[in-house]
Amino acid sequence: MLKIIHTADWHLGRVLHNQSLLADQAVVLEQILTYIKDHQVDALLVAGDIYDRSIPPAEAIKLLNGFINQLALINVPIIMITGNHDGAERLSFASQQLQAAGVHILGNLNQVTVPVVLQKADVTVKVYGIPYADPESVRDAFGCEVKGYDEAHTFLVEQVKAVYEHNANNLLMSHCFVDGCETSESEKTLSIGGSDRVSFEPMMDFNYVALGHLHSPQQRGADHIRYSGSLLKYSFSEHQQKKGVTLLEFDEKGLVKHQHLTLKPQKEVRVLEGLLEEVIAQGKTDPHKEDYIMVRLTDQTALLDPMGKLRVVYPNILHLEKTLLTQAMGKTPNRDALKRGAEHMIQDFFKQVTGHEMTPEQLTIIEATLKSIHTQEA
Amino acid sequence: MLKIIHTADWHLGRVLHNQSLLADQAVVLEQILTYIKDHQVDALLVAGDIYDRSIPPAEAIKLLNGFINQLALINVPIIMITGNHDGAERLSFASQQLQAAGVHILGNLNQVTVPVVLQKADVTVKVYGIPYADPESVRDAFGCEVKGYDEAHTFLVEQVKAVYEHNANNLLMSHCFVDGCETSESEKTLSIGGSDRVSFEPMMDFNYVALGHLHSPQQRGADHIRYSGSLLKYSFSEHQQKKGVTLLEFDEKGLVKHQHLTLKPQKEVRVLEGLLEEVIAQGKTDPHKEDYIMVRLTDQTALLDPMGKLRVVYPNILHLEKTLLTQAMGKTPNRDALKRGAEHMIQDFFKQVTGHEMTPEQLTIIEATLKSIHTQEA
Repeated sequence: MLKIIHTADWHLGRVLHNQSLLADQAVVLEQILTYIKDHQVDALLVAGDIYDRSIPPAEAIKLLNGFINQLALINVPIIMITGNHDGAERLSFASQQLQAAGVHILGNLNQVTVPVVLQKADVTVKVYGIPYADPESVRDAFGCEVKGYDEAHTFLVEQVKAVYEHNANNLLMSHCFVDGCETSESEKTLSIGGSDRVSFEPMMDFNYVALGHLHSPQQRGADHIRYSGSLLKYSFSEHQQKKGVTLLEFDEKGLVKHQHLTLKPQKEVRVLEGLLEEVIAQGKTDPHKEDYIMVRLTDQTALLDPMGKLRVVYPNILHLEKTLLTQAMGKTPNRDALKRGAEHMIQDFFKQVTGHEMTPEQLTIIEATLKSIHTQEA
Repeated sequence: MLKIIHTADWHLGRVLHNQSLLADQAVVLEQILTYIKDHQVDALLVAGDIYDRSIPPAEAIKLLNGFINQLALINVPIIMITGNHDGAERLSFASQQLQAAGVHILGNLNQVTVPVVLQKADVTVKVYGIPYADPESVRDAFGCEVKGYDEAHTFLVEQVKAVYEHNANNLLMSHCFVDGCETSESEKTLSIGGSDRVSFEPMMDFNYVALGHLHSPQQRGADHIRYSGSLLKYSFSEHQQKKGVTLLEFDEKGLVKHQHLTLKPQKEVRVLEGLLEEVIAQGKTDPHKEDYIMVRLTDQTALLDPMGKLRVVYPNILHLEKTLLTQAMGKTPNRDALKRGAEHMIQDFFKQVTGHEMTPEQLTIIEATLKSIHTQEA
């Protein structure tokens, strides 16, 4: 049995609401190494977006470098395609020389027909890689007339199908947005208005398709056309996704099984909802206080420094939303409602700071002040 | 005989007065390849500053990538150390994997004692590389107490000398500023006030020292301690330097000879001096009109758009200096001299635009106008 791990969208160097995730990324990369060792995996695929941007920070380069050095120690090849976040030319430096060392960086459209051949005993798998490409790059590389992402992607898939052996185990890697899939907030739109979608149909004829770009693990069109999903949750919208890698097993005849192996981050990405007091009370006994937290407050009154108060119990709170405020933003407030609102806000604020209600005398002063402000405005 | 070419300070991606030099760099890199083939060279050394900055443009990466692919075709290893312009971490990505392919990127201080071993028949040369390092990096890497660049560099050289075999052919590469050497305007100062200088004495005990950092080819302290100089002239101050590479020949016992091989740029960097009319006349019959030109004008009168006029004959003129203006900037002008100056400037300007001298009437108007301006100023 030849075993392959499919993963994608590492986005090394990513930040979540200004928090660097490098240490978190290092932890799950270690888990991938452990899976590779425990399952005696023969190759690792990364289907694009290795880095979060074309010029990654030096620390992200160091992290990837350390990872491939560890892979080299156990003699496991890595096959990467470049994604829309990667700088193909930058990442592909010395890629020709690196092949011999088992580091395959596929970032060149003109090489989509050249497979990386994996072999173990009687089992051979040919891995073809289609890096992320916009239609213009495809036109430029092939001198063809493709219009739009779908035509461009189909063209590239057809290039591969024109040369591959039908009887062999053919695995396709591609970094693209397959139409009809579930999206997450952390994915970058490739093009406005949905024109970035490509069809799954041309990819049916491969034994397995290892996709990258969408961050939620999912299949589309057939069980063997899959997104492994991203390395970590890169937005709070992903808080309920189960991140992981896909373990594939091939025999001489094709894909025997695939399996989702969960990645366990050192800090979870969680969304908490409730009144400020409730969330703080929950935090005091929360065994995972260190998680990356977003809080949705349902309080109906104005609050003094809720972020500061929450940070005492949840040191890694990264984002705060007020559901009432969010709901209110949908309505068009009239002038009277706003006036009444201002008095209430001040009363709430006063109570929070002093612990008492305003006296009728104090309220009179506030009302008079507000009135004089509104008079000046009018 | 084992043959090595020593070169340094490529600064791929450099611009000269806003002019990209990538195409020029590609031409001389081709010449280095030709020298390697013609002389049957066994290894190429680049003593730092491969790129012009830590984040080089993608086009510079592509150029280096193409070059190492060509070297791979003829099976010649390349050994690079990182310079002060390079991003050591960025350039060193996958350096461990690249060694097997003959691409040696030495950017890690903790590896200075690990040589790249070159061998041909009976001749062995061990190449040790000291990447550019400021004293703080040395303290950090070794937990030692070195003060200043000289102590830091000596410390690193001593690390190598503590492990090397005295009887072997030992070659040291280092990117540093050796005290007493000739400088050029295109070198970046490492530290204010000369504290970046290091002594040559600790390096005497090597068979050859391949230096990088200073852009003029030169030796210092001994004939075998040499700067090869930069790939091209990177400032007009270098217009009289002879750029090239150094060809070394070793037998079993050591360095047999070294030789400077000239690099011939597609466009020379030249400085022309004279009156505007003279320089223009010379340009009309100049067989090397396409060179990168700086002009020093000796005209004593004001000139209308000299840059535009010169560009007609010298399309790649990059810089213009007026010697009189330059000399005048040394003096403190008094108010009277400035006043007389303004009238003369206007007369010159008028003559250039119209082809005639001003009439006495016109001059009277100018004088009156200048007077009224000065009255308002006072």
